[in-house]
Amino acid sequence: MTYAYEKLHDFTFQLLCKIGCPPDQAKTASDVLLSADLRGVDSHGVARLSGYVRLWQKGRINPTPNIKITYETPSTAVVDGDGGLGLVVAPFAMKVAMEKAEKVGTGWVSVKNSNHYGIAGYHSMMALEKDMIGISLTNASPLVAPTFSQERLLGTNPISVAIPAKNQPPFVADMATTTAANGKLEILQRKGMDTPTGWVQDKTGLPTTSANGVKDGGALLPLGGDREHGSHKGYALGSVVDILSAVLSGANYGPWVPPFVAFLDPDPNPVGEGIGHFFGAMRVDAFRPADEFKSHMDNWITRFRNAKPTPGNDKVLIPGDPERELEAIRIKEGIPLLDPVVKDLTELGEKFGVKF
Amino acid sequence: MTYAYEKLHDFTFQLLCKIGCPPDQAKTASDVLLSADLRGVDSHGVARLSGYVRLWQKGRINPTPNIKITYETPSTAVVDGDGGLGLVVAPFAMKVAMEKAEKVGTGWVSVKNSNHYGIAGYHSMMALEKDMIGISLTNASPLVAPTFSQERLLGTNPISVAIPAKNQPPFVADMATTTAANGKLEILQRKGMDTPTGWVQDKTGLPTTSANGVKDGGALLPLGGDREHGSHKGYALGSVVDILSAVLSGANYGPWVPPFVAFLDPDPNPVGEGIGHFFGAMRVDAFRPADEFKSHMDNWITRFRNAKPTPGNDKVLIPGDPERELEAIRIKEGIPLLDPVVKDLTELGEKFGVKF
Repeated sequence: MTYAYEKLHDFTFQLLCKIGCPPDQAKTASDVLLSADLRGVDSHGVARLSGYVRLWQKGRINPTPNIKITYETPSTAVVDGDGGLGLVVAPFAMKVAMEKAEKVGTGWVSVKNSNHYGIAGYHSMMALEKDMIGISLTNASPLVAPTFSQERLLGTNPISVAIPAKNQPPFVADMATTTAANGKLEILQRKGMDTPTGWVQDKTGLPTTSANGVKDGGALLPLGGDREHGSHKGYALGSVVDILSAVLSGANYGPWVPPFVAFLDPDPNPVGEGIGHFFGAMRVDAFRPADEFKSHMDNWITRFRNAKPTPGNDKVLIPGDPERELEAIRIKEGIPLLDPVVKDLTELGEKFGVKF
Repeated sequence: MTYAYEKLHDFTFQLLCKIGCPPDQAKTASDVLLSADLRGVDSHGVARLSGYVRLWQKGRINPTPNIKITYETPSTAVVDGDGGLGLVVAPFAMKVAMEKAEKVGTGWVSVKNSNHYGIAGYHSMMALEKDMIGISLTNASPLVAPTFSQERLLGTNPISVAIPAKNQPPFVADMATTTAANGKLEILQRKGMDTPTGWVQDKTGLPTTSANGVKDGGALLPLGGDREHGSHKGYALGSVVDILSAVLSGANYGPWVPPFVAFLDPDPNPVGEGIGHFFGAMRVDAFRPADEFKSHMDNWITRFRNAKPTPGNDKVLIPGDPERELEAIRIKEGIPLLDPVVKDLTELGEKFGVKF
């Protein structure tokens, strides 16, 4: 069963208005949330709406935040999200980064006191229309065990980098710093299937291929899977994301990051405020003429896309290709939702008097 | 057999003077090269000295470069390395980044017309003494096949991020964006051993565990190893390094990057000048007071280091721990060199009248 983008967007918008979001913020949040559904990151889209609402019910999301810059230099800022939706705080902060880039070449903004910000790629891609390179990082609830750690200390801490091209579509990387995202485990759970090696460890810290491994007290593994396959690199990347997002801004980091699920309480002794993000914007013409840069990007993209593929594969993909292709289909044909998500949204709508 | 740091440093310095480097540049280059040996990245240290000399003999390294800024904004610059040793060009460029950070909070420098710059971590760590976060990236000769590509299109394109702490030693990540670095293959070749899965593909593009896979026309694999284990993420990271280092500066990128080995000629139709690097420096007090940041870094590091380890492992390591521990040992006990390296350096010394 598929649903039109506009319908899901309108439902989300109306629901966010019902919990007290000002219309302009509800609009922004709906744009960000639905962009996940369009791009195929279904775990970060409208399926999460009721999760955000439950956090609001617990008083953990401020629907009318006073988002502001608390400190700045010509190329940097710290933004206080005032406990607002990350879906609203993040675009605010990315705009600050872009305004600074306009003036001094680059802008870098670390954010505290925020919440889950949807897909990382939405925010990095905001830079593209200004011929800027966009960077978007966030920390998240601890589900990931560092190499050699039995404990979960990091989130899936994604990295997104968006780079403009000329006639080619842009390069858009958007990746968790784990081998696989949690959403992929859920799919395997529903199918009763095992995971590949290197995705999960069990609660004793040993490798497992159980799709229930994380649920049962284990952890996701950093990109690489184990030491022999480079998990210390995935661990290092996830750590850098955590530090730039939270130690730099004054948000919670590592195991102190508040959980996204409302049934788990945040640590009673936080080391900072809310969760943290980090954004960067670099004007390409702060390095060389934009047209020259973008022509070379076209050449880069074309050369890679036309590389000889390995046996059994059609072609080499450019980061962002699969998501862009899916977006074109879903805008036209609608967004597929699983039955439990439809049921969840229907009940949510009934509760708040918004027809799904 | 081990050799004292000072002896190897002096040998390198004198040899670089013989090929025409000004003494101050020969000193810097020796510092950078030997830091690899101290930190255990043996493949990037003095073992490479004769490789640099062969490039000089071919006229591919300019011993007296006029390194200069060719374009800049308050927070950015492009540096032209004038074909000099990357070992000299990179510290110059990192200093430019730090000077800009001093003034406007952060500095970002993309470099063209350079050569191999040693270990990425030397340059990022320059930022630490100024309470800055340092970032160092470089592209390199194409040895890596993107996900689904039979062709080698990327280098091992490392990422280094150095972050200062207070009483704890700094956090220093320094990692190739491949599952394993080429140096590890060489070790296995000498031992006649196979590689783990996910390190290498053969020349037809199929996975192999042959340690000779790359030598025989295959390729190193991006971090992750294959699609199921997230190789598209390692590929995306290596690509970002390539683009920031070279498309942004006007250096060669992707398959056009000139090979490090002198017996292979650069592409006759280059898309840019030399190889490219990218450096960043961010003043931590451009975000929050340095002392506050560094105290939280101590807390971050302590919490992670004290995490409960997985069965069979002693402790959780912080990025930079193994290299720092090895450096302390090697400064005291000397640097071990393999027989072929000793032979190579002895012959090199004889040729240039410098006693090894």
